[in-house]
Amino acid sequence: MSKSPSDNRQVYLKQRPSGIPQAQHFGIRSVGVEPLREGQFLVRNAYLSVDPAMRGWVNAVANYSNPVGIGEVMRSFAAGRVVESRHPDYPVGTAVMGMLGWQDYAVSDGGNIRRVIREHDLPLSLSLGVLGLNGLTAYFALTTCGRPESGDTVVVSTAAGAVGSIACQLAAAQGCRVVGITGGPEKVELCRREFGVHAAIDYKAADFEDALADATPQGVDVYFDNTSGRISDAVVRRINHGARIIICGTASVASWDPWPAGPRVERHLLNKAASMQGFLAFDYEARYQEAIDVLAPMVREGRIRYREDILDGIEAAPASIADLYQGRNAGKRLIRLVDD
Amino acid sequence: MSKSPSDNRQVYLKQRPSGIPQAQHFGIRSVGVEPLREGQFLVRNAYLSVDPAMRGWVNAVANYSNPVGIGEVMRSFAAGRVVESRHPDYPVGTAVMGMLGWQDYAVSDGGNIRRVIREHDLPLSLSLGVLGLNGLTAYFALTTCGRPESGDTVVVSTAAGAVGSIACQLAAAQGCRVVGITGGPEKVELCRREFGVHAAIDYKAADFEDALADATPQGVDVYFDNTSGRISDAVVRRINHGARIIICGTASVASWDPWPAGPRVERHLLNKAASMQGFLAFDYEARYQEAIDVLAPMVREGRIRYREDILDGIEAAPASIADLYQGRNAGKRLIRLVDD
Repeated sequence: MSKSPSDNRQVYLKQRPSGIPQAQHFGIRSVGVEPLREGQFLVRNAYLSVDPAMRGWVNAVANYSNPVGIGEVMRSFAAGRVVESRHPDYPVGTAVMGMLGWQDYAVSDGGNIRRVIREHDLPLSLSLGVLGLNGLTAYFALTTCGRPESGDTVVVSTAAGAVGSIACQLAAAQGCRVVGITGGPEKVELCRREFGVHAAIDYKAADFEDALADATPQGVDVYFDNTSGRISDAVVRRINHGARIIICGTASVASWDPWPAGPRVERHLLNKAASMQGFLAFDYEARYQEAIDVLAPMVREGRIRYREDILDGIEAAPASIADLYQGRNAGKRLIRLVDD
Repeated sequence: MSKSPSDNRQVYLKQRPSGIPQAQHFGIRSVGVEPLREGQFLVRNAYLSVDPAMRGWVNAVANYSNPVGIGEVMRSFAAGRVVESRHPDYPVGTAVMGMLGWQDYAVSDGGNIRRVIREHDLPLSLSLGVLGLNGLTAYFALTTCGRPESGDTVVVSTAAGAVGSIACQLAAAQGCRVVGITGGPEKVELCRREFGVHAAIDYKAADFEDALADATPQGVDVYFDNTSGRISDAVVRRINHGARIIICGTASVASWDPWPAGPRVERHLLNKAASMQGFLAFDYEARYQEAIDVLAPMVREGRIRYREDILDGIEAAPASIADLYQGRNAGKRLIRLVDD
């Protein structure tokens, strides 16, 4: 441990953004750590997670969780190891992942721990990505909302992203025709080379809609939507009878205040007896291990590939969310505090 | 039989409407009926059905069925009795319901028959309403897409309508709090008095949104949507976690060409992990009898009430669809050709 618990650096919310959180909305401070009480343990965070959902956590607009308060440590997933413990279930050395916040050290009573990490042969950072909420999301959204069958055409938006890339590979492993939508020639190439898609399409290209039509000659059975906006509008026009649309994210919508308009979906859903279902990973946390049991072997066997975009040092955290919305990250974005 | 099969009056599509079909889009002609071939039978239609879905059947815009051709008999459900038969399964006197068209007589080989009617104690007209596609739709849309549980708040739009009124009563029978949305004080009163709703709201009233909020203090668990448009926009803002929205009709949208815009639903569905599912009764035709087995006893016991809006004579047919979109019908609209 390079730092003592008397010097815990924290990234806190300084100012509430109305849209995408930028560096100036956060501050960094150093605080001491209180001595542990019975039933508590101290986690040294090794990796902090940077997720698109964090925008929702700091916006005042009603969302699926209460917003982070001004002056509070930025809510985030993090992975680390127990360095002090007065809790029998979390002895020193235990690797954990949980809602530990953007800080060096977190005191926990277990309530904010999502998972004890037991895949000791795999990097700890994976518990925030392919074996973290990203993997959990891709796995359960696909299996419970998407329900793809062999031969189905599955379209995934943000296909090069942390969730999208796993969704692509899971669908391909199930014998589906997978079409990935992403931004720019580099990510298109990444999807083709690494993530097992049958076709990858650049939504920034002028011929996006034609390319989508060419890539989905049999229409679309499952749409794994991480973007909303005009990308989704184009995909929804191509759905088949009984299609399943998974609403997993709305990355292309910069702000919901004022609420944006788009083509009404009701008639598409009705004509095709199709469904559109919102997916929140939180609803599936009790089944977390089920996803790990499927994903970890696939990672070990190289059947699921992943990319990490690691920034070093807590100073990188405040500006790290905005980049995601510019598509500047090249994989699951993490802040590394300790090289575990 | 007042008319001989040599004088079969037919309502045919004369001109394709771009929006709601009006009287001038149809013509009426008399034709002879060809002698029956082996395996055919002749049905004397007693009641012709008038349904909002017929707009879609005559519009050129892609829909869930191929459009009716110019000069073709208007596609419709009808109920009647077999008056001549060369088919062993359909002897003379058999009561049938099927896609028999807006005409006095229909030749059938059984392929367009949806159901042989066996509830001889109940009026034949019911096979086009509460025991027809309306009942089938309300029953299966509610049970497969809506899945209401006792105590849920269920909101139904066009609650005084042929489908909506059955949906209200089925949900109420299941122990749900039912809120009906309809247009005008008379229909509000009808919903309250006849269709078992706990609250009825007039969407034409200035305080519609406040009234909706007052009527759904616990939010909305199931929304049985027959309208789309601003009515739906208001309901969707009040959905609970895990809500189910059934897209059963889009009666408030006058035209889908150009395609109308509305507030994007993705963020609502995501925040609440809610679903929006299109429902087509055609997908459930194989299970038709299952709905009848539930609905017919409820009708006999007065636990499901229904209203019929019967127009007399085939001459009333051409203008009968447009009225539905004005909310001028007072129940399931039918054209009576024979008083069966």
